[in-house]
Amino acid sequence: MEKRTKFLLDEKDIPTKWYNIQADLPQPLPPVLHPGTGKPITPDDLAPLFPMELIKQEVSTERWIEIPEEVRDIYRLWRPTTLFRAHRLEKALGTPAKIFYKYEGTSPPGSHKPNTAVAQAYYNKKEGINRITTETGAGQWGSALSFAGALFDIEIKVYMVAISYHQKPYRRIMMETWGGKCVPSPSPDTNAGRAMLAKDPNCPGSLGLAISEAVEDAATHDDTHYSLGSVLNHVLLHQTIIGLETKKQMEMAGTYPDIIIGCVGGGSNFAGMFLPFIKDKIDGTKPDLRIINVEPTSCPTLTRGPYAYDFGDEAGLTPLLKMNTLGHAFIPAPVHAGGLRYHGMAPIISHLHNLGLVEARAEHQLATFKAGIDFARTEGIISAPETNHAIKTTIDEALKCKETGESKTILLTHSGHGHVDMAAYEAYLAGKLKDHSYPKEKIDEALKDLPKIK
Amino acid sequence: MEKRTKFLLDEKDIPTKWYNIQADLPQPLPPVLHPGTGKPITPDDLAPLFPMELIKQEVSTERWIEIPEEVRDIYRLWRPTTLFRAHRLEKALGTPAKIFYKYEGTSPPGSHKPNTAVAQAYYNKKEGINRITTETGAGQWGSALSFAGALFDIEIKVYMVAISYHQKPYRRIMMETWGGKCVPSPSPDTNAGRAMLAKDPNCPGSLGLAISEAVEDAATHDDTHYSLGSVLNHVLLHQTIIGLETKKQMEMAGTYPDIIIGCVGGGSNFAGMFLPFIKDKIDGTKPDLRIINVEPTSCPTLTRGPYAYDFGDEAGLTPLLKMNTLGHAFIPAPVHAGGLRYHGMAPIISHLHNLGLVEARAEHQLATFKAGIDFARTEGIISAPETNHAIKTTIDEALKCKETGESKTILLTHSGHGHVDMAAYEAYLAGKLKDHSYPKEKIDEALKDLPKIK
Repeated sequence: MEKRTKFLLDEKDIPTKWYNIQADLPQPLPPVLHPGTGKPITPDDLAPLFPMELIKQEVSTERWIEIPEEVRDIYRLWRPTTLFRAHRLEKALGTPAKIFYKYEGTSPPGSHKPNTAVAQAYYNKKEGINRITTETGAGQWGSALSFAGALFDIEIKVYMVAISYHQKPYRRIMMETWGGKCVPSPSPDTNAGRAMLAKDPNCPGSLGLAISEAVEDAATHDDTHYSLGSVLNHVLLHQTIIGLETKKQMEMAGTYPDIIIGCVGGGSNFAGMFLPFIKDKIDGTKPDLRIINVEPTSCPTLTRGPYAYDFGDEAGLTPLLKMNTLGHAFIPAPVHAGGLRYHGMAPIISHLHNLGLVEARAEHQLATFKAGIDFARTEGIISAPETNHAIKTTIDEALKCKETGESKTILLTHSGHGHVDMAAYEAYLAGKLKDHSYPKEKIDEALKDLPKIK
Repeated sequence: MEKRTKFLLDEKDIPTKWYNIQADLPQPLPPVLHPGTGKPITPDDLAPLFPMELIKQEVSTERWIEIPEEVRDIYRLWRPTTLFRAHRLEKALGTPAKIFYKYEGTSPPGSHKPNTAVAQAYYNKKEGINRITTETGAGQWGSALSFAGALFDIEIKVYMVAISYHQKPYRRIMMETWGGKCVPSPSPDTNAGRAMLAKDPNCPGSLGLAISEAVEDAATHDDTHYSLGSVLNHVLLHQTIIGLETKKQMEMAGTYPDIIIGCVGGGSNFAGMFLPFIKDKIDGTKPDLRIINVEPTSCPTLTRGPYAYDFGDEAGLTPLLKMNTLGHAFIPAPVHAGGLRYHGMAPIISHLHNLGLVEARAEHQLATFKAGIDFARTEGIISAPETNHAIKTTIDEALKCKETGESKTILLTHSGHGHVDMAAYEAYLAGKLKDHSYPKEKIDEALKDLPKIK
């Protein structure tokens, strides 16, 4: 058989519908609760922040949801993305495993984030919204939404965690190049920001505070909505374009994965890959399919957090989500995989984990960088620090195959390149990085703040 | 007709041969001269620095040169690259012109440079070489060669101009991630470097000095060769893979370019695109094809430099090349398009320019960044500052079509993304950049140092 390195789809093969797992769940998702009443929230509760079309998607149980032609037209700028066979990595490992990776790093912002940013910008524009606020940590999400804002002529205001704003200027400048406005959070632009600055003018900020600022800004401006880059059902829905393309590409390769691996922060990238596959596990077609969520030991949400109702933000402004959580007060160590530093996990992933349909594993920072360097020196691609977590687990599973002699098919979800994260590699190569994990007491402490449900 | 945004080739369509323009030149290239004797150099003169296969390619007049399977196998990691139709840019400009761009930014280092780095590493390895030295300015070339070195297990030593080494760390860290060794030049590792450091311990370095160090290192180590990332005939040869792919893709699009546009520093990226097309102009099939080389006003080699014999480096160590030159003593202003700051131009491009087969144009820095931002906000891609020069000219030609109502086909050669160049965009957006051009006296002054041919 001809040796193939990549499996390409034509632009006409871009899926026309997203896949909604809510149609096929063995049990429905627990409802999202209003923090004041403890009752399920209504669409009207969310209308000041989100366009109605996204609110509908959040709760829809339709299996397939049409991708608007205007969204597909922008997807064409980088989609379909390539599925690679990692021949060089396999050879270096000496494994009989077949490793495939789906690479999202060729999008203009360099990651999977625009898959949902473009869709969210479209639905907002259609509802007459000309301004969207959001928060960003390291800047992947803020830059993706700024990119989408440029293409739909929407003003994007990004509240960026102050310490990242100052330490990691490249993503901020990307936002500005696309026309986005980016301010360090805490900022003087909101009550929440001003209150914090009054207390501590040098406050380094936090994702929770940045969310508070972005939500307040949206709630207090008529033509403005708020946008979130992960966690929510509609965000995972948009990301299923990754898995839908990959299923076709695995067919081209004449195989089906035994194990699917991806990194999880809020979980949208990896869910986008595995949801179209897990359907086959739920309906019994592929009962042995393994799905491994990889998180950092510095933020072990699925591996050590309980499945409970919690706020989405540190400040406690959002509705309550049933999810694996370390407590909204949990502040993860400042590891370089900024996109994985979130106290909660997407409700859909948490639910599937609770049902025993997906696994989870936590990896240490140093080992993930080592894996990332091995990947760069074999497959050529310098990966984002987040992705390195998935690469580490992939290498481990491939080495297990070497021991057992099994020729399993492993599918790696590659979320993006690391060209804007070179400072992290520098710190690793200079021996300046550390591993981070937590004693049980520290996690128990953060979990004390879990809200009581009425 | 179906609206298409991109034209994809399968990996089996990666060309199997490079195209050698020397087979089809209306007049042969002037010889390269030995600076001591003034006589044409011989292969033996070059053997201490280059593998014999590359020396042969440098002077070959065979039309097609086989691409080794080992090189094609690595090309598969990112090639064939995509040809895009710039529908969104066209619409924003309101032009009847059809704009296409061939995008090299999806290679692992983010530019066209690995097309030749991989080939050069392969031929060196085949000749038993385990170590290669080179110089780099902003770091595009050094990172591409480090990438290639990782894949062929060759140690890469990069002398990086000191001021860039300190000011632009991201490319250096990319080199190190791929296993390359990078030192600031002047360095204590060579006589040339030590002599300069003794004179001035804080010397910011120059590309000429870095070349001197890399050449000295290679010449004084038995198992070590030297490698150059542009200018030479074999480098342009390897880059013709860009134009060969594009020709097939333009056929898929059902059209042929009226104008081909690209930026030129040493010239390898743009020549790689246009050489397979200029063949059709030379043989009379496409007599009206226009080819526009775009350079910065800060380094106006083709537009203002004479066609004369000169050294390739500032220090005067290399053989003499007949080329357009501003004089090897010319130091261009520190514009952000570091890849275009070279005093000379590839002998092949200079020869074709002298024969009237290609045009040249110089663009001011500020206007190129403006064009780059327009491109980012329409097509989505943040481009390298070098590429922005070609985008500026492309927009101008498209606007001319708007005036005349002509629906010309314009082909833009897009050399790579700008994710590692965000500091340049920041300076532009903050209003800190200036335009640079030179009074006639300053250029005349630099040209006084042109070597006298015996």
